[in-house]
Amino acid sequence: MITVVLLGAGNVAQHLYTAFRNQELTKVVQCYNRKGIPIHKNQKKDTVTSDLSNLKEADLYILAISDDAIEEVSRALPFQNRLVVHTSGSVPMDAINDKNFRGVFYPLQTFSATKEVNFTNIPFCIEAESEKDETILKSLASQLSKKIYDINSDQRNVLHVAAVFVNNFTNHMFSLGNDICKENEVPFEILHPLIQETAKKIIEIEPDNAQTGPAIRNDIKTIDRHIDILKNESQKNIYKILTKAIQSKYGKEL
Amino acid sequence: MITVVLLGAGNVAQHLYTAFRNQELTKVVQCYNRKGIPIHKNQKKDTVTSDLSNLKEADLYILAISDDAIEEVSRALPFQNRLVVHTSGSVPMDAINDKNFRGVFYPLQTFSATKEVNFTNIPFCIEAESEKDETILKSLASQLSKKIYDINSDQRNVLHVAAVFVNNFTNHMFSLGNDICKENEVPFEILHPLIQETAKKIIEIEPDNAQTGPAIRNDIKTIDRHIDILKNESQKNIYKILTKAIQSKYGKEL
Ligand SMILES: NC(=O)c1ccc[n+]([C@@H]2O[C@H](COP(=O)([O-])OP(=O)(O)OC[C@H]3O[C@@H](n4cnc5c(N)ncnc54)[C@H](OP(=O)(O)O)[C@@H]3O)[C@@H](O)[C@H]2O)c1
Ligand SMILES: NC(=O)c1ccc[n+]([C@@H]2O[C@H](COP(=O)([O-])OP(=O)(O)OC[C@H]3O[C@@H](n4cnc5c(N)ncnc54)[C@H](OP(=O)(O)O)[C@@H]3O)[C@@H](O)[C@H]2O)c1
Repeated sequence: MITVVLLGAGNVAQHLYTAFRNQELTKVVQCYNRKGIPIHKNQKKDTVTSDLSNLKEADLYILAISDDAIEEVSRALPFQNRLVVHTSGSVPMDAINDKNFRGVFYPLQTFSATKEVNFTNIPFCIEAESEKDETILKSLASQLSKKIYDINSDQRNVLHVAAVFVNNFTNHMFSLGNDICKENEVPFEILHPLIQETAKKIIEIEPDNAQTGPAIRNDIKTIDRHIDILKNESQKNIYKILTKAIQSKYGKEL
Repeated sequence: MITVVLLGAGNVAQHLYTAFRNQELTKVVQCYNRKGIPIHKNQKKDTVTSDLSNLKEADLYILAISDDAIEEVSRALPFQNRLVVHTSGSVPMDAINDKNFRGVFYPLQTFSATKEVNFTNIPFCIEAESEKDETILKSLASQLSKKIYDINSDQRNVLHVAAVFVNNFTNHMFSLGNDICKENEVPFEILHPLIQETAKKIIEIEPDNAQTGPAIRNDIKTIDRHIDILKNESQKNIYKILTKAIQSKYGKEL
């Protein structure tokens, strides 16, 4: 049985709390947040505190709080030599005050308040200062997910940048596609199956082998026609830059 | 019963042939391709021709051939006043010679030779010169798919540009994410679930509402750190341009 104190009341804290409730081998003995409010509708009020000096003893303290607050809150903890982890993709492990044993318990997924989360396939990136602590964190993660990775702070940074490309920038491509459809009164939903297929392909083949389209085919007639169809300067510009990037990546010239 | 002659031996012709084989209401009475070869392992040899002057009579002739060949092959057809369609996303309907009734039967998906195709969710974009022909094409499409759209040649062009954004450019984002991981010896597969989630979200919420990340949050500290981590100039450049595009789209300034 691993006992946990969970700090924070945001998206990650709420989803972790809900997930741990169903686990027999983990017990969230207490929650902390500034307002002292339950973070789950069935949580008993006496398991929540808004006072750091009231924190109970536990095997593990999870700081599921804003990146910027990790340093300050970890400094304010009224104990030492216990295991304290954060859940951030971009904050280094040593942002946690070194009076405690430090670690990272980062679930690599985007969470939002409304959407239910199934942790089974969400990768957990684990980091710790000792093997013993790493074992605790892995055993905890393995109760929620099948996918557990040893990732140090530098690697986590790299993952975070790569995630900006595959998540944030990809979503921007969807957003531009949506705009182009709207501006021309074509339903964007026609493209939904293509979007799902584009994402599914990545699991089976390397993205370099999945690249198709006028850029890699060097189909200049189509490229020119497309640039002509786009009326918005920013869309035109991104079309040109990414076409050029694809062509130079695969050895073609505009 | 709709009778069909299928012209071409490429990805689209093969997948359409395989799909029509299982339909009771459609019969592919003949295939044409330049080499006169069967396009399915169970196709009888006498249903294939390499000679346009041998083409049988049918309700519908589908030109599943390269975009550039549509004009020429449609001109070479030795009959008139029959229904002739192409399967292209970017060629206008009137590229088909006007001695016949013209139409478009465009399945909006990427096909490759090796991967099996389930047409059920693939959108078919239909265009025709008369309502009667449109009805034939829709009835044919509805045997394969639940998703059928009336799309004229201008709209099809727009869809094609939008598809470049959501498919080709998105895949390039995956490719850059993969490179960044490889260069830093982090397994790209950690990002697979995030990629699936990014695509799935689009079905439930508008891409503009799904936009997250340092750009839209205007998190300059993280943006600067990311640009620092990227070693490759082209990656840096795309990171900056797309960050700026997201910021100006949502009213933030770099
Ligand atoms: N959301 C995601 O998709 C996601 C995914 C993976 C990892 N993460 C990481 O998980 C952590 C939490 O993210 P989140 O999305 O759950 O954030 P969130 O929904 O914005 O919630 C942030 C929480 O931090 C608390 N907080 C902020 N400053 C504090 C302070 N000085 N003292 C005490 N509590 C403070 C807030 O308390 P109040 O309620 O009192 O304001 C709130 O409960 C972050 O490190 C984030 O990078 C997020
Ligand atoms: N692949 C996709 O993802 C996809 C998706 C939707 C729509 N489409 C459209 O579907 C059509 C076919 O695409 P595809 O991917 O199946 O192409 P493909 O695999 O490259 O096959 C092209 C076929 O066209 C034939 N062809 C080329 N020039 C010809 C000519 N002058 N006379 C007779 N036959 C000729 C080729 O014959 P040989 O075998 O003799 O060379 C080949 O069988 C195109 O309009 C394309 O835009 C493709």
